[in-house]
Amino acid sequence: MDPIRIAVVGMGKIARDQHLPAIAGNKAFGLAATVSPHDPGVEGIAHHRSLDALLAEGPAVDAVALCTPPQVRYDLAAQALSRGVHVFLEKPPGATLAEVAALDDQARKVGVTLFAAWHSRFAAGVAPARAWLAERRIDRVAIVWREDVRVWHPGQAWIWEPGGLGVFDPGINALSIATHILPRPFFLKTATLTIPANRAAPIAADIEFRDTAGAPITMDLDWRQTGPQSWDIIVETDAGTMKLSNGGAVLSLPSGTDRSEDREYPGLYARFASLIHGGRSDVDTDPLRLVADAFLRGRRETTEAFHD
Amino acid sequence: MDPIRIAVVGMGKIARDQHLPAIAGNKAFGLAATVSPHDPGVEGIAHHRSLDALLAEGPAVDAVALCTPPQVRYDLAAQALSRGVHVFLEKPPGATLAEVAALDDQARKVGVTLFAAWHSRFAAGVAPARAWLAERRIDRVAIVWREDVRVWHPGQAWIWEPGGLGVFDPGINALSIATHILPRPFFLKTATLTIPANRAAPIAADIEFRDTAGAPITMDLDWRQTGPQSWDIIVETDAGTMKLSNGGAVLSLPSGTDRSEDREYPGLYARFASLIHGGRSDVDTDPLRLVADAFLRGRRETTEAFHD
Repeated sequence: MDPIRIAVVGMGKIARDQHLPAIAGNKAFGLAATVSPHDPGVEGIAHHRSLDALLAEGPAVDAVALCTPPQVRYDLAAQALSRGVHVFLEKPPGATLAEVAALDDQARKVGVTLFAAWHSRFAAGVAPARAWLAERRIDRVAIVWREDVRVWHPGQAWIWEPGGLGVFDPGINALSIATHILPRPFFLKTATLTIPANRAAPIAADIEFRDTAGAPITMDLDWRQTGPQSWDIIVETDAGTMKLSNGGAVLSLPSGTDRSEDREYPGLYARFASLIHGGRSDVDTDPLRLVADAFLRGRRETTEAFHD
Repeated sequence: MDPIRIAVVGMGKIARDQHLPAIAGNKAFGLAATVSPHDPGVEGIAHHRSLDALLAEGPAVDAVALCTPPQVRYDLAAQALSRGVHVFLEKPPGATLAEVAALDDQARKVGVTLFAAWHSRFAAGVAPARAWLAERRIDRVAIVWREDVRVWHPGQAWIWEPGGLGVFDPGINALSIATHILPRPFFLKTATLTIPANRAAPIAADIEFRDTAGAPITMDLDWRQTGPQSWDIIVETDAGTMKLSNGGAVLSLPSGTDRSEDREYPGLYARFASLIHGGRSDVDTDPLRLVADAFLRGRRETTEAFHD
């Protein structure tokens, strides 16, 4: 089978750190082009300043990976889909739920693949955690996602704008894991969002969810964590406690602990190739829906101004 | 066919003004009971202080209409569905999208009817507006929903709480009409929510949507309107301008104006009976999703405190 000719659109940190190596490591894909208004691109690969220019001037592409901020993703995706080009959406898949639903409809009508990628679902511990939990009674879940925004998102102004999600930008990764591994759906009961006086998006959030069997799920998000960082999901069950830590990489079960190497983006690209070859899409918006619900239902508190 | 034995849960203004008369006017239903912790109920009809008590002590019911504030609706609905009782959800169908999705799943599994009711869709002008627009090119849409909160929602404290939706409580009616009559889906581009310093929910909002063909849709919500009130949707098309006013009751087309009598709640109950008899559900969450998107993506501005 010929490699899928793919262009990477939006050459920021995530594109260079993760997408380019994952594409280079997967024989199902060939990097055909890069797109960015400012970035110079990659030695030996066609580069354009806009998706318009790429689609007009070539080279031909079968797929695009959209690594831009979510606020501008819809137009790029709709344009690619209208040309019959498969689309990989970095997380979150859009700035609103309705725009992702519209893209999903469009992809269906055009008959091409749309993939709403949730990279944390491909962390090493996630699949075994899901399998282990499938047959347990869930008594209580605690999600603790505390990191230092200055370390992980330096100078990313868009993340603080409306639609940038603030601390839910990392927090949605936790939700992408939780919605994947927990056997029952869950929904928000109360939420408090803490927003810096000079920003539009939360720097911290404190949420209580409940699953449909009544089990409480707490979520503690904070971007002001210095020192050790926490990306943990702890599930108490009738068979003991399961802990997923390091963002899903390390799984601790009552029987012992597994640590495997990071395969998140390679996993995403394997999945994208499989969706394209199977003529299918995967547009799960459950994590973004929970975040939208937190903004819809949550109480807001103002805290001190944040400066990078 | 025996009448559907229905209980009305939550005996506030909407239950007395609309639900009881609509039930009394529809032979498919018989009012079996009312539920409210404070209200004394209706002469000659069984009354309970909680849904628990009704389900435990009877009389037997086939269906419930939930007219409580949205923040407490999920538990009541889940409890009714678990007993095989059909559920009518007043708008909005829940305080979050995820809880409505969970109820939808539950209703499907149990095999009973769940109806997310959008009363404005049954306003007299809405069906002919939808039919007229189906074949037009939509150039521009303006939604103007300006009313006096002191007149229409006096002392409704829940409406100002997180999950109460603020000015989107009436505004979601406009969205329920717009999502029903416009031929293409639309999604939010920008929004500004104006929130009183002493409240958790907006008193006004200014939104720009766009449909998937690029047509702009503006929405102007304001609860501070004194004097004449506005509940209008104006659609400019290639065949002239359509105006739905009075919340959908009056339709003006280039060929003339139609005014018909209010049939919103009778229409809802006719639909609910038809869904129950057909073994189907209707759980369209598009209007609530657009509101969640406005809270997710919108910029917030603080305005002067509001006192009833």
